[in-house]
Amino acid sequence: MERLSLNQITVRQWSLAEAVEGCARHGVGAIGLWRDKVAEVGVDEAAALVRRAGLRVSSLCRGGFFTGRGPDGPTGDGVAGTRAALEEAARLGAEVLVLVVGGVAGTDLAGARRRVAEGLEQVVPDALRLGVRLGLEPLHPVTCADRSVLVTLDQALALAAPYPVEAVGVVVDEYHVWWDPRVEEAIAAAGARICGFHACDTLVPLPDPLLGRALPGDGPIDHRRLRACADAAGYAGPIEVEVFNADLWALPGDEALTRTVRAYLDHVA
Amino acid sequence: MERLSLNQITVRQWSLAEAVEGCARHGVGAIGLWRDKVAEVGVDEAAALVRRAGLRVSSLCRGGFFTGRGPDGPTGDGVAGTRAALEEAARLGAEVLVLVVGGVAGTDLAGARRRVAEGLEQVVPDALRLGVRLGLEPLHPVTCADRSVLVTLDQALALAAPYPVEAVGVVVDEYHVWWDPRVEEAIAAAGARICGFHACDTLVPLPDPLLGRALPGDGPIDHRRLRACADAAGYAGPIEVEVFNADLWALPGDEALTRTVRAYLDHVA
Repeated sequence: MERLSLNQITVRQWSLAEAVEGCARHGVGAIGLWRDKVAEVGVDEAAALVRRAGLRVSSLCRGGFFTGRGPDGPTGDGVAGTRAALEEAARLGAEVLVLVVGGVAGTDLAGARRRVAEGLEQVVPDALRLGVRLGLEPLHPVTCADRSVLVTLDQALALAAPYPVEAVGVVVDEYHVWWDPRVEEAIAAAGARICGFHACDTLVPLPDPLLGRALPGDGPIDHRRLRACADAAGYAGPIEVEVFNADLWALPGDEALTRTVRAYLDHVA
Repeated sequence: MERLSLNQITVRQWSLAEAVEGCARHGVGAIGLWRDKVAEVGVDEAAALVRRAGLRVSSLCRGGFFTGRGPDGPTGDGVAGTRAALEEAARLGAEVLVLVVGGVAGTDLAGARRRVAEGLEQVVPDALRLGVRLGLEPLHPVTCADRSVLVTLDQALALAAPYPVEAVGVVVDEYHVWWDPRVEEAIAAAGARICGFHACDTLVPLPDPLLGRALPGDGPIDHRRLRACADAAGYAGPIEVEVFNADLWALPGDEALTRTVRAYLDHVA
């Protein structure tokens, strides 16, 4: 249990206060926060809630969108947005700010990828100053058009390479990278760059690219194998269970968290 | 127009005879056949239809499923099925048999990939004897669980490497590989292995992993750029437009083909 972190999206039906109380009841020692849930109570109150509960904040989701293109169309200035998110992460005591880098406007995929590298360069000094790591998270290629032109761990490692490991890390999310023929080599190569590990399975057939996720054990992903790769690479940090699943969201939060903890213990730990 | 081939799935509303007549009316000189449409008239009649029309048969779809797992669950023996498909391809005068290798049974992705390599090895002698190339087609990672553990061109090239180019080639389908950060290098490395190029765009947001495809120009894919990569690698063969799209299927076949030809000329040729 000591490595389990509850990513807040998994029990989206809960407010931040409810999620914090739930973690205490279920013996979960860390939480991955989402900015919309934080905004509902305000950053200061959110920080006080997790601090009083003694919860480790494994990550804050999310900054990025450096390409200017998100799932709902054009985004604002990704660099400014990421700086604001970094400040928020620091106030919350979050160790990592997860980055979702953005999709393609028009048909210029190479240009979108250049803008990601340029945007990252601009926010690295802020990350170092604030003591929050930027966590580059490759998303599944199915999100390439509208959410993330960053789709493989190899690509994330190349983006991170120019910067110190304490400034830029990579987040390994099983749902997003399990299919990659190079995933095991890439995790090994990542080593100290790994700043997060998200456990999540995939539904078969996939009903929807965003919501087609499942608790560990409910799909084809070999969680212990991928976790062993991360362990062997030296990662000893929190393992967040992060699942977007409408059935899970329809349950009472306590039941959803019970299932989450059980799936983690049975298939990941 | 001289490189355009109509993949039959694009006008699925048409029988084989209707598709052959449609190609003649619209000046399309090549066709990619599907086995279910061939079976409706029988292999001999299908072969006679395309031969009388003077159509080049750029490919037959499909063989494979070496892993034993398909979208509808367990498949039959992939090696036996692929041998039968190779015989059919030879009788039809098809240059290439497209292979969809199959998904993962359980959670043993590495084992599934081994079975693909083992299955391929067994059918290579048949391909050489019959003079039909096996076309390894990497499918989008969104299909990894239930349809294709082969998801990148690099992976296809590694699988093909032990065999002569006339026996095993790779099919570049834009929808399936456009997101890959290594796609341009992989196409260059493929060179004479390239035995097919499928033009197809992707809908944004993706409504469905199978049907979320669009005519070239209706999505974020830069078709001329990818085609130029294949040209530079020495590929001078047919370019199939292969689109699974319910709106296109709901049109009268002639209208669907008119739109297909226009999309090809405007965005690919």
